[in-house]
Amino acid sequence: MALIVQKYGGSSVADAECVKRVAQRIVATKKAGNDVVVVVSAMGDTTDDLIDKAEQVSPLPPARELDMLLTAGERISMALLAMAIANLGHEARSFTGSQAGVITDGAHGKAKIIDVTPGRIRAALDEGSICIVAGFQGVSQGTKDITTLGRGGSDTTAVALAAALNADVCEIYSDVDGVFTADPRIVPAARKIPRISYEEMLEMAASGAKILHLRCVEYARRYNIPIHVRSSFSQKEGTWVVDSSDIEGHEMEQAIISGVAHDRSEAKITVVGVPDKVGEAATIFRVLSEAEINIDMIVQNVSAASTGRTDISFTLPSSDGQTALSALNKVKERIGFESLRYDDRIGKISLIGAGMRSHPGVTATFFAAIAGAGVNIEMISTSEIRISVVVAQDDIDTAVAAAHRAFDLDADQVEAVVYGGTGR
Amino acid sequence: MALIVQKYGGSSVADAECVKRVAQRIVATKKAGNDVVVVVSAMGDTTDDLIDKAEQVSPLPPARELDMLLTAGERISMALLAMAIANLGHEARSFTGSQAGVITDGAHGKAKIIDVTPGRIRAALDEGSICIVAGFQGVSQGTKDITTLGRGGSDTTAVALAAALNADVCEIYSDVDGVFTADPRIVPAARKIPRISYEEMLEMAASGAKILHLRCVEYARRYNIPIHVRSSFSQKEGTWVVDSSDIEGHEMEQAIISGVAHDRSEAKITVVGVPDKVGEAATIFRVLSEAEINIDMIVQNVSAASTGRTDISFTLPSSDGQTALSALNKVKERIGFESLRYDDRIGKISLIGAGMRSHPGVTATFFAAIAGAGVNIEMISTSEIRISVVVAQDDIDTAVAAAHRAFDLDADQVEAVVYGGTGR
Repeated sequence: MALIVQKYGGSSVADAECVKRVAQRIVATKKAGNDVVVVVSAMGDTTDDLIDKAEQVSPLPPARELDMLLTAGERISMALLAMAIANLGHEARSFTGSQAGVITDGAHGKAKIIDVTPGRIRAALDEGSICIVAGFQGVSQGTKDITTLGRGGSDTTAVALAAALNADVCEIYSDVDGVFTADPRIVPAARKIPRISYEEMLEMAASGAKILHLRCVEYARRYNIPIHVRSSFSQKEGTWVVDSSDIEGHEMEQAIISGVAHDRSEAKITVVGVPDKVGEAATIFRVLSEAEINIDMIVQNVSAASTGRTDISFTLPSSDGQTALSALNKVKERIGFESLRYDDRIGKISLIGAGMRSHPGVTATFFAAIAGAGVNIEMISTSEIRISVVVAQDDIDTAVAAAHRAFDLDADQVEAVVYGGTGR
Repeated sequence: MALIVQKYGGSSVADAECVKRVAQRIVATKKAGNDVVVVVSAMGDTTDDLIDKAEQVSPLPPARELDMLLTAGERISMALLAMAIANLGHEARSFTGSQAGVITDGAHGKAKIIDVTPGRIRAALDEGSICIVAGFQGVSQGTKDITTLGRGGSDTTAVALAAALNADVCEIYSDVDGVFTADPRIVPAARKIPRISYEEMLEMAASGAKILHLRCVEYARRYNIPIHVRSSFSQKEGTWVVDSSDIEGHEMEQAIISGVAHDRSEAKITVVGVPDKVGEAATIFRVLSEAEINIDMIVQNVSAASTGRTDISFTLPSSDGQTALSALNKVKERIGFESLRYDDRIGKISLIGAGMRSHPGVTATFFAAIAGAGVNIEMISTSEIRISVVVAQDDIDTAVAAAHRAFDLDADQVEAVVYGGTGR
């Protein structure tokens, strides 16, 4: 008998019909002889509706109270799901994050999980019950206030519970079939990836693939919890996110490149004419860090000998753009830079693959593909298993398609690459 | 500095504007130098909407899950209210029933309060915070499941917290100005009662006056918590519900009769032809009690000597009518009665007043007034401070008005009776 943690997102429980369908799926898993813990998000637009309500009474609601408000969303969906399961003749009990033992720090709206003490869940499982747990929420250590985990919170709840319960697998359900080699809306020939390592999935998530949140993958890697990303609308196998050793053992002919991710949500700031002195760059990034802005890529030009000045460019979430600009303008005199340039019409394309470690020439092929598509590269950054470039936002689709094709990821070709050894 | 517990019902927090208005009222109370604890119900129709959702996924939802679902309602209203108060520059913290220390038994949907341990509320008050507490909900002792208190739950939460915190007063806000001598929709000359004893208020509540629930008044009487029933739409004094000793001390010229209550929600069942043997009536009422039906009035006719049989009539909430009829039909053979008659077109009129203890003739005046209005009395029951009669439902308005007039309760007259001694 396996212990399976399943997580259903808001679109999977959008209305009563969806809730009943998910209930059937859960009951089928239970009937197959498994213990089942389900983590559920708020229904469809519930969270947005609650935020609207908050804005109607206060322009800047206190974070503690916003958390109290928003956690009503999962409370509703989890109770309804438990009822729907009971209606199919199976015992189900719902638990809030607090009841499930999800202990967090006190950072309302973006709390971090400190500990998971799922004693009540374990006891309910032992009594044969299906457990439904509210995603996205916890209770703060010490003050015992209700907290929310912020973006990707429900996925993280699921993986954290799976780790604490020593579950066999954490299944993440959404409305897509798994992780693809590229966004199928851009590359119709994109193919579902059957298995991917935590490291590659982390790079995919950090590069704009929205299917799993970075945080949840990090948690899964730390505790070595296999994640199965799949659709709640089909019975098909999805994508397994597992330890790299589990992949290399199973698939000798692993593809060099796992996929091409893209991200339209970033902007680029260029600090023009920074005096080329020791510590100036450090000051710039300390200021941004104090404003709690996450920087992605950084490029510093060689300084012009004639002026003793240089330009520093970096990318960041465009939602943080205004905050970053005003933080930098406050230290303009102190640093002595000349001006700021802001561009939110950029996009990032990333090539991810553990295979690129051992295959030289990947970078050259990637750049050649993009150049061949007539797209100009503005910035470059690399990790051991990823190459990212910044291009004009309008060029994203063209560049993604070109890279996908250049690495033989298109569906017909890929079958040969991945399954070549077996002859299928 | 006083400690004031205020309770706002669903109509007082029906939308964002209402929430903001209530927030101003709470802040004014705080600014006047009081510690303030607020108990709040779910907004407007929220509870009904949640019940609708439950019915969409399950015809008979488990009580535990229904409680989990419904408690989302107060969670939303209390968080919004805390936000609205914060927006006025005052610190406010919301607490669930569980966080506020409302400990109940495990009877989901109709839990009873076992204990109140408001340590977190006390600590927040000591730090100068306004406390907002979810009404209607608690947490079960032992299993620590979320429970709801059932009808009148939020009022009971408020009184229970007031008792546990040793508050100076519990203010119950609704959309009416206080407790009236009769329903003003039936008797336009009905007058607001300035002060009424717990005992009289209990009889009023039990007799169909909907403004305060029986349970909340019982709780207040047990702990001697003064209740101030008033409107959230005006600043007028409402009705004080207090210990009778506090009334007799203040108002020498107390009215004999406090008010006339009525109730259209009951039905009458007559068990026809019951064998006149010892224990037959006991069997009937044991069967009904096992079906968890609350009986109100009972009348047993003298048995006809010729047949050795008698009729037993009783009243009960008409919502329990079908359950009662089928429970009785199951024991028809065993008891040997002839038939059942059911009538839900009845109404009950009750005259309540502590003064009737020491004033003979009240019963005679009451019956004469009803007879004088041409209304037939079907059943009678009395307590020390109440007389109730059952009449045809269509006669309710006529009979209430006649009784109200007969006891000089109409507005012009009453001023003379109640305030006669002071000359006002």
